Amino acid sequence: MPGLAPDRPGDALGLVAGGGSLPRLVAEAARASGWRVVVVRIGDGMADDWSGYEGGAYPWGRTGDAIAYMKSCGVQRMVFCGTVSHRPDFRSLIPSFQTLIRLPAALKIVRGGDDRLLRALSRYMERQGFEMLAVQDIVPQLLTPGGTLTRRMPDADEEQALVLAARAAGRLGELDIGQAVVASRDRVIALEGIEGTREMLQRVADLKSRGRIGRSERCVLVKSVKPTQDERFDLPSIGGATIEEAAVAGITVIGATAGRSLVLGIDDVLEAAEAAGIAIVGLEPDPGTANGDHGGDRP
Amino acid sequence: MPGLAPDRPGDALGLVAGGGSLPRLVAEAARASGWRVVVVRIGDGMADDWSGYEGGAYPWGRTGDAIAYMKSCGVQRMVFCGTVSHRPDFRSLIPSFQTLIRLPAALKIVRGGDDRLLRALSRYMERQGFEMLAVQDIVPQLLTPGGTLTRRMPDADEEQALVLAARAAGRLGELDIGQAVVASRDRVIALEGIEGTREMLQRVADLKSRGRIGRSERCVLVKSVKPTQDERFDLPSIGGATIEEAAVAGITVIGATAGRSLVLGIDDVLEAAEAAGIAIVGLEPDPGTANGDHGGDRP
Repeated sequence: MPGLAPDRPGDALGLVAGGGSLPRLVAEAARASGWRVVVVRIGDGMADDWSGYEGGAYPWGRTGDAIAYMKSCGVQRMVFCGTVSHRPDFRSLIPSFQTLIRLPAALKIVRGGDDRLLRALSRYMERQGFEMLAVQDIVPQLLTPGGTLTRRMPDADEEQALVLAARAAGRLGELDIGQAVVASRDRVIALEGIEGTREMLQRVADLKSRGRIGRSERCVLVKSVKPTQDERFDLPSIGGATIEEAAVAGITVIGATAGRSLVLGIDDVLEAAEAAGIAIVGLEPDPGTANGDHGGDRP
Repeated sequence: MPGLAPDRPGDALGLVAGGGSLPRLVAEAARASGWRVVVVRIGDGMADDWSGYEGGAYPWGRTGDAIAYMKSCGVQRMVFCGTVSHRPDFRSLIPSFQTLIRLPAALKIVRGGDDRLLRALSRYMERQGFEMLAVQDIVPQLLTPGGTLTRRMPDADEEQALVLAARAAGRLGELDIGQAVVASRDRVIALEGIEGTREMLQRVADLKSRGRIGRSERCVLVKSVKPTQDERFDLPSIGGATIEEAAVAGITVIGATAGRSLVLGIDDVLEAAEAAGIAIVGLEPDPGTANGDHGGDRP
């Protein structure tokens, strides 16, 4: 599964990089495929160390400058990835001249909220003449395979919990809300809003430590793609940090939609999961539902 | 709107009382209607001071004793109310003899999770020959009236946020999950899982203080009855504490399903809401949806 190579070796790829480990994986894979990677740091990635790559950090107020910069680098194709957890507010939009002339569009983008931010920005970029690529175009090997990926398998109770969590995640997804749900066999425990998966898992850990979740009540985490989602942006992902956070929360199985979510460094993730006694399952989307209840190949 | 009176003055009413202010309101109203109120304290209400009332505190392991006690007091009708935030686990069910003979049923009840606990317990009580009454049978004046209850009215942005939050609450309700959602005009911010409304509002306050919710982004809270809900138990409610917690979270409007939710002490609640600049709205259930999107009588 090789990633997309440039038409000519050394063609520029614009990497608009938020926080987390994903932008690095994309940059390395792109470079290995022959791209010249130009990194524009935004959101949580603003302070990350990208030495060794061309690029710069751009606050929201300088979106226009970032575009001008990428054009000057010869960027025609672009990937957005990484986390943007702070919603830009009007103060942070005090614009540079380049941004000022694009202000009406920028304001429209900001209104949509964090969750739709990358999507809205990317539509804007397309109107600016850039071609938007998906992370999985560059690094297809990140896509979650189907079936149980760990030696540890979910048991019957955990299978039931996966079904319940996947159904809830589907309902949330239809409303373009969070992508993650924690459930046990008997009930839904926690639903991701704007706080993100990490903070939701911290909440579950806290509920567990206070006895609000029974000692014998095994909990699963499901991360599910939204049916409304442009799959080029912000696919749900599982990384090393997810495993650590899930283990602290007492999660025993993590399910993610097969082929429509990302595992960031699968060897390390599976090794960490086995060590923590966590099963990882690529959930097959159910064709009968909008968002894929867990079909499951076990009874 | 008088509450249900006993067939004969002095007939016993069993009040199975969890935590919070609601059990006290019910006890006082029942006594004023001529009932002799017998208070069985459970869950978060275990340590509450109920001097002046007959009764006792019963851990889950003594459910059977509570039943025997109420029968000995001549209780035939019973109301369940108040909060039960800790899920009983198997350790807390180490049973008394009276409970032991009922253990299979008790275990079945506990499996359902906090949320269904009162409902399951109450079905069990019916099988024991008790008649289960609703809080609103005893104190009908607690039901939320329709329309805007405060002088402060929601504006157009807040109306849109109410629609979004009510739609999300409806989806959650269909899955028998939480009853509460926080949304702004543009996005759903937080969804209640097992943590309850108070902790969800603390989360929203925290997100706001960290800049994850914009300064100009007004947020509304919707509490909505579940379509699957037996309305005799655990109707969503708004009390003085809700207003305080909502104010800290920066909530500017609270909506609750008219006629299917409770306002606990409406004069005090409305006064506190006006002082905090919060509008309170009784949302009309939309007949076109299972759970009542906010129909609204304003454009």
